[in-house]
Amino acid sequence: ARPRVGYSYRDDLGPSPIMERLLQLRVCSFKSMPVNILESASIYEAAVTMFTQNVGSLAVVGPERVLLGMISRKDIMKASLGKGDLQQVPVGVIMTRMPNIFMTTPDEPVYSAAKKLVQHQVDSLPVVESFIDENGEECYEVVGRFTKTNVTKIFVQIAETRV
Amino acid sequence: ARPRVGYSYRDDLGPSPIMERLLQLRVCSFKSMPVNILESASIYEAAVTMFTQNVGSLAVVGPERVLLGMISRKDIMKASLGKGDLQQVPVGVIMTRMPNIFMTTPDEPVYSAAKKLVQHQVDSLPVVESFIDENGEECYEVVGRFTKTNVTKIFVQIAETRV
Repeated sequence: ARPRVGYSYRDDLGPSPIMERLLQLRVCSFKSMPVNILESASIYEAAVTMFTQNVGSLAVVGPERVLLGMISRKDIMKASLGKGDLQQVPVGVIMTRMPNIFMTTPDEPVYSAAKKLVQHQVDSLPVVESFIDENGEECYEVVGRFTKTNVTKIFVQIAETRV
Repeated sequence: ARPRVGYSYRDDLGPSPIMERLLQLRVCSFKSMPVNILESASIYEAAVTMFTQNVGSLAVVGPERVLLGMISRKDIMKASLGKGDLQQVPVGVIMTRMPNIFMTTPDEPVYSAAKKLVQHQVDSLPVVESFIDENGEECYEVVGRFTKTNVTKIFVQIAETRV
């Protein structure tokens, strides 16, 4: 039989060319710089940091940039609806705490990181590298952010055949 | 000369197959439901609406859902850093007001709407249909939202060859 030509693909032929290309694109090439804050900082300081850095979420870190939690604009908006003084309450009180954080790594394909953003309904994933601390426990150092903004930029670049 | 085969493309050959496919995808097929609020609502009400509807921005509308402005989580976070009472200040005071709003339409390709999100550094575009009001002026009825979340979902669907 004459082979079909063109750009239609069947599942049993394996991944499509687009999928193959996307699987080669890694988080490390598209991630943003991390914007971190200490657990002891106030919610007010976190809001100011988000505002001045123009980011939608912050990684809350301990010594050696170890990931402790994440705080988003949504968390801060929720806190601002309450009666508490944003200058008095530390971010550690309202952050989403490890191990309940969805993360990505520098070598993860952007496709699967994008899928995490959609499935877990978060705007941002911390990009982490794991290491073993002196107590023999696995820790995660924050080395970047991967966000829906990054995915939207990749989308435009793919459309323009620039990646 | 023998034609080259494979998936490398030159600009002068016209749009790539991915671009051609993306240009067929329209905002109307992927947009989210609009979440609107009246100009007279308080910032507090806007924050509660964003929270309960789980959206990052609201369209501020007049009669017949005519677009007057947009308000984002960032705007609300900024207001919450000030001294004002969020329950007293109307959203009309802090919203971004027409005509300074970047918009999209149901028949715009998702590619160019995504490009607007990136270029103008906004998380969401109101999807509008224009009409002429009784004074002969062009107005825009809000019929949806197009966001970086929508783009991220399309990205995953394209990777999985589902669109």
